[in-house]
Amino acid sequence: MNIIDIIEKKKNKLKLSKEEIEYFVNEYTKGNIPDYQAAALIMAIFLNKMCDEETSNLTLAMAFSGTTLDLSDIDGVKVDKHSTGGVGDKISLIITPIVASFGIPVAKMSGRGLGFTGGTIDKLESIEGFKTSMKIDEFKDKVKKHGMVIAGQTEALAPADKKIYALRDVTATVDDISLIASSIMSKKIASGADAIVLDIKVGNGAFMKTIEDGEKLATTMVNIGKKLGRTTICVLSNMDEPLGNGIGNIIEVREVIDVLKGNGPEDLVEVALTISSLMIYLGKKASSIEEGKELALKSIKDGSAYNKFREWIVSQGGNIDVIDNIETYKVAKNICEYVSKEEGYISSINAEGIGKIAMSLGAGRETKESEIDPSVGIIFSKKVSDYVKVGDVICTIHHNDYKDMESIYHRLDESIKISKQYKTKDELIYRIIK
Amino acid sequence: MNIIDIIEKKKNKLKLSKEEIEYFVNEYTKGNIPDYQAAALIMAIFLNKMCDEETSNLTLAMAFSGTTLDLSDIDGVKVDKHSTGGVGDKISLIITPIVASFGIPVAKMSGRGLGFTGGTIDKLESIEGFKTSMKIDEFKDKVKKHGMVIAGQTEALAPADKKIYALRDVTATVDDISLIASSIMSKKIASGADAIVLDIKVGNGAFMKTIEDGEKLATTMVNIGKKLGRTTICVLSNMDEPLGNGIGNIIEVREVIDVLKGNGPEDLVEVALTISSLMIYLGKKASSIEEGKELALKSIKDGSAYNKFREWIVSQGGNIDVIDNIETYKVAKNICEYVSKEEGYISSINAEGIGKIAMSLGAGRETKESEIDPSVGIIFSKKVSDYVKVGDVICTIHHNDYKDMESIYHRLDESIKISKQYKTKDELIYRIIK
Repeated sequence: MNIIDIIEKKKNKLKLSKEEIEYFVNEYTKGNIPDYQAAALIMAIFLNKMCDEETSNLTLAMAFSGTTLDLSDIDGVKVDKHSTGGVGDKISLIITPIVASFGIPVAKMSGRGLGFTGGTIDKLESIEGFKTSMKIDEFKDKVKKHGMVIAGQTEALAPADKKIYALRDVTATVDDISLIASSIMSKKIASGADAIVLDIKVGNGAFMKTIEDGEKLATTMVNIGKKLGRTTICVLSNMDEPLGNGIGNIIEVREVIDVLKGNGPEDLVEVALTISSLMIYLGKKASSIEEGKELALKSIKDGSAYNKFREWIVSQGGNIDVIDNIETYKVAKNICEYVSKEEGYISSINAEGIGKIAMSLGAGRETKESEIDPSVGIIFSKKVSDYVKVGDVICTIHHNDYKDMESIYHRLDESIKISKQYKTKDELIYRIIK
Repeated sequence: MNIIDIIEKKKNKLKLSKEEIEYFVNEYTKGNIPDYQAAALIMAIFLNKMCDEETSNLTLAMAFSGTTLDLSDIDGVKVDKHSTGGVGDKISLIITPIVASFGIPVAKMSGRGLGFTGGTIDKLESIEGFKTSMKIDEFKDKVKKHGMVIAGQTEALAPADKKIYALRDVTATVDDISLIASSIMSKKIASGADAIVLDIKVGNGAFMKTIEDGEKLATTMVNIGKKLGRTTICVLSNMDEPLGNGIGNIIEVREVIDVLKGNGPEDLVEVALTISSLMIYLGKKASSIEEGKELALKSIKDGSAYNKFREWIVSQGGNIDVIDNIETYKVAKNICEYVSKEEGYISSINAEGIGKIAMSLGAGRETKESEIDPSVGIIFSKKVSDYVKVGDVICTIHHNDYKDMESIYHRLDESIKISKQYKTKDELIYRIIK
């Protein structure tokens, strides 16, 4: 077998065999195939597409390209969850204690934020003492003891995906459904998931801009899951405006606590309950999604989700005093109001624009080397379809002596649109695909 | 401007601008764009194609990526000639003295053989003393003095083409009409041609396997020539069986001398006269192609072509005694006969197969580092459509103690087919496209 023949085959729109895909993935990971040949193949795959079988084989080959997590000695259905990334998306922090409170093991590896979308690991690390880096034994130990853990993804897991993703990033081959699907699914499979819930964000603040593209990605991932024996359910959720009210690391932790205490913003609660319901259902603690949702809601109302959250923070080394006094923890030096210049209904809040503003303030990384400031961000008091008068506060900007506030106000003007006409709230959950 | 945007554009089937193509070619040549991004772009170009304008712009950008030859101080129309490569193709050695004998300057850079096709430079270097490596001044000086020169292509000429070709070779992106056309044309333009005759070989012993593909390549090159003000004429000629009777370096020089003395094999003479006629016509020494052909034939008959050939060999340092005693020069140690096992008509002689056998004997290079044995090769005494009886010699094998002659005989069996039915000779010149 040789890589030129494999490129030639895909170039001629032929289907690659399991062996050919494995050969490419393994040899590329080992460094035996140079980047330029991989780049030619990836572009050929991008333009000539892969069928479901090829996509599944690519997923498997990447999943098994390095260490895999064996969670078989942990009782219960290990349900993993993944979001394609959005602005204000703190869902993982909410669903982990909810789902774990039903005895469903949550053993999750998450990523850091890059660009305008935040990362679960960064949010958790904004809590003093919280540790996201640990050895496999410790990781599994925490699941066994507390029923939940979230750690940063280890380098050893699916190294092929890491290498191929980095190459796609610099060769304009990121936005292909098969390649996105196999990248996500390979990591989930490598980290030992029995079943997977995928939250596919759709909208201007997400990678998938249209419901149609989101559906295609969902169908591809559900099909991969079927072929590989991992039941997969996809939620298509709205990411036109930021999710919830807060954007910024400790700001989002505060909002997570609000939700778990029963005081969260409606949209965030709705998405969190939907994701939780699917995980509870797949974890076999509910016989239907509806029942799962009732159970999730109940765990918030009776305090068991919040108790589990406190247990979780402590279990990973977090300072519980921070949680108990979250309102006064890491508050930014400056809090400025952004007020409406017009009267009318908020017709849109551009999630990508807001994500980028938060990033500029220091809530996200502009490059992999940037340091995050956990205290900064934006908190909305009005969202799409809310009515505002001139001078009403739409959001507050939390920053630490940020120099160029004028540009922040200007960018907020550009990201937030007000209209005389009433704008109905967009659907929050577009589809559930299984 | 940045390379990711350029890849993205071609990936989305958009036309690249002149500036974008120049940016890619120049920055890639300088090493500022890595191979993997170039590979992704080339694959996108391969699959999404380039229009004539893009192809012309790529040609120009590659032509001007390094040194260019300025032949403007040499009188007359500088007509260059290029063959896409075949087996037994010694046309350049024949047409150079013919065309030069009419005062049309021939200032040609040629390549070495690689794989199963031979190279003009290797053939010339099999003549003792013949020098193909020289400085630009010397190159031009020879044209001024003798009206002809053939040298090896300098590294400084069209370096972008060299780098892109090497990348295409290892990324399965060689066989694209636009890329082939721009590669050939860029070298011809960089080496200062005013007009160009292209001999596009078609058949199993050539890169273009069908007349349709050959026509497409021809049309593309003629169009590039038009856009760039270099009149270009393409000849589509048959390369199903080897051209002429001899394959092998000094063996082919002998056959060249036969042709120039008026004793050459019919097919070789016909192609040589056709190419010469087009060059004489483009060089404005004939008012029609037909007249050009008459003149070419006349130059053979009256000895002026052969005299010019002798002058040429001497002018580049070749030992004229070798030419005058070519029959005894560098004769291989062993000459074996390959005889027919059947009675019938030769229905095919697979040029690629024969080229590879000659290469195995030492007439060509298996890798760039291989050394050539100028004396070895194959000489046919029968060609397609000839009648043979059992025991008739079809060809002789010239070798120097080659170890595995059994495999050579076996491979000859596979390459030469005999049929009871009469096989008409295929057309030799399929088309002339201008």
